[in-house]
Amino acid sequence: MINFTIKPLDTKYLSALETVINNKTKPPGALGQLENLAIQLGLIQSQPLEEAVVAISLNKPTMLVFAADHGIAKHGVSIAPSAVTRQMVLNFLTGGAAINCFCRTNDIVLKVVDAGIIEPIKAVEIPDNNSFYQQRIASGTQDFATLPAMSGTEVEQSLAYGASIAMQEILQGCDILMLGEMGIGNTSSASAIMALLLDLPVNTCVGQGTGINQEQLLLKQQLITQAVSRINTRSAEVPLSPKEIMAEVGGFEIVQMVGAILASAQAKTPVLVDGFIVSIAALLAVKMHPNSKDYLLFAHQSDEQAHQAILTHLAAEPILNLGLRLGEGTGAALAFPLLKAAVSFYNDMASFESAGVTV
Amino acid sequence: MINFTIKPLDTKYLSALETVINNKTKPPGALGQLENLAIQLGLIQSQPLEEAVVAISLNKPTMLVFAADHGIAKHGVSIAPSAVTRQMVLNFLTGGAAINCFCRTNDIVLKVVDAGIIEPIKAVEIPDNNSFYQQRIASGTQDFATLPAMSGTEVEQSLAYGASIAMQEILQGCDILMLGEMGIGNTSSASAIMALLLDLPVNTCVGQGTGINQEQLLLKQQLITQAVSRINTRSAEVPLSPKEIMAEVGGFEIVQMVGAILASAQAKTPVLVDGFIVSIAALLAVKMHPNSKDYLLFAHQSDEQAHQAILTHLAAEPILNLGLRLGEGTGAALAFPLLKAAVSFYNDMASFESAGVTV
Repeated sequence: MINFTIKPLDTKYLSALETVINNKTKPPGALGQLENLAIQLGLIQSQPLEEAVVAISLNKPTMLVFAADHGIAKHGVSIAPSAVTRQMVLNFLTGGAAINCFCRTNDIVLKVVDAGIIEPIKAVEIPDNNSFYQQRIASGTQDFATLPAMSGTEVEQSLAYGASIAMQEILQGCDILMLGEMGIGNTSSASAIMALLLDLPVNTCVGQGTGINQEQLLLKQQLITQAVSRINTRSAEVPLSPKEIMAEVGGFEIVQMVGAILASAQAKTPVLVDGFIVSIAALLAVKMHPNSKDYLLFAHQSDEQAHQAILTHLAAEPILNLGLRLGEGTGAALAFPLLKAAVSFYNDMASFESAGVTV
Repeated sequence: MINFTIKPLDTKYLSALETVINNKTKPPGALGQLENLAIQLGLIQSQPLEEAVVAISLNKPTMLVFAADHGIAKHGVSIAPSAVTRQMVLNFLTGGAAINCFCRTNDIVLKVVDAGIIEPIKAVEIPDNNSFYQQRIASGTQDFATLPAMSGTEVEQSLAYGASIAMQEILQGCDILMLGEMGIGNTSSASAIMALLLDLPVNTCVGQGTGINQEQLLLKQQLITQAVSRINTRSAEVPLSPKEIMAEVGGFEIVQMVGAILASAQAKTPVLVDGFIVSIAALLAVKMHPNSKDYLLFAHQSDEQAHQAILTHLAAEPILNLGLRLGEGTGAALAFPLLKAAVSFYNDMASFESAGVTV
């Protein structure tokens, strides 16, 4: 079993960071949310230095997209069949998906992880080995409507795989990790996790995913309700732990992302969280280790109704609100230039004194 | 007098653009507001081609920051004295302001225009002549609390100057213009324009600018109320035209931006509008030539209370909402990467057919 030691941010550098920002040639607070982003990134990077960081760095920004399949998908609760997970992974590898476009535009390194899609990617299908990682747990999860999605051992293995790739990137100089996902059926898994973890009615946790119809939405609600009843009947006495919930209704990509988040927090490296699915991974990480919250930034509020509730629960302040509902990490890739902007004003803007401005 | 001929966008290319977007490897509508941005940019660039554009271009993105001083500022209605306008222009020229940081980070060419600051910039103070333009009308406007801010001739001259620099950039290959401003006192001018143009109570048009105190806010409201009374007494019978309003309470930077917007719309080049002050210039342009609205994109909703009302009036859908209240064009520079992202998905994303995805 992998253990994480995650320290909270020591806020003793806060006033020094605020002084830097308040001496910049602008009215106090005039850069709004960008100032909060600079403060959070600055606090994180001040920890190992044991003094307020002079220049925040965002070297080797890296997007890890975790892909996996879901047994629940066989009921037709998504707009597409499970085969599309693999087809989209190939699309990522050949550079044609939305996440490829946004990573290229914003100078983000994109790496794709097979966390457990049904049919593995063949060696001949991989154009560039540096951008693809095989960290398969199994050929998709079990159908959680009737069975646990995975075993406790598979949960541990998934956490270790996710932690491993995050640590590898961080050791190679990555200062900021972004997470994304692809997995037909994974909003069903995310909604079930949310219902169990926050003890909320299923209907408030279920949305239309990438755009299912009313009939599919009812089926999705019904299957998740069935799963929650099955699980609660078994364990009505003691609330389930995050790991037990992951085993019951999780997905391999979701659990690997939890591992990646916890490893990043342990290594004091910020993670820019994407939409609903990644936010569920973040919620699981925070429930396991509350201090991990200090290292999370939230890219956007998606169009998925339940996402707002998760963000509120995490007291998160999303950067963008563009009505996205695509996943893949697209929201995080789109928000990244705003982190760069926050860093650039912290690092490079003149002070009143240096610019000779007499405010 | 300069005349503008601005055609509305011909929407006959709309369905072809939508077909391109709907064949991309993503659920329909899943990129939310980015899809609207791609459609608008695509429609604009389809006009001269007379067919749906295959690849949208955003060459030579250029930020024009117009600076000028305001007679009203002598009453102390801002957090800083008029001298700071010039000091900040020098800060722009030496690269130390927030707008410099954001233009550098996002690969935007920054040009600074002296539209009428009190004391001209000296030749020795200009490090790079290519980024500074002297288009001075006068050493600041008159105090509009008691006198018209400028003459009708100065309005015409300002419109011509603004149009001229925009046309120059567009002729040199700029596909997207961004506008920003610097001018101590210019939220007072913008609020007075808003009250007169939309016939709204002064108090709903006045906010705290970059952060004045309650006493200054009351003084600001009182001076603008005094100006509006003075003007309405003179011309109660016939509503004032946008040009008459600009003469009464405008600023040289605001009127030059109106000229730049109208020239861009005439040349079928999109303009990314920044915050409250630039939105007031956009509102003036739209009141003069309603078709110019088709060429405007709105970068952000600022923290200035009256800005929301302007955006609603223009049926604008701002891209960002970060609580900014700095001006300088910072919101537009920050939103620009999202236009690049919209263009990149339109131009480069695979179709279902090309990627072999079977949705």
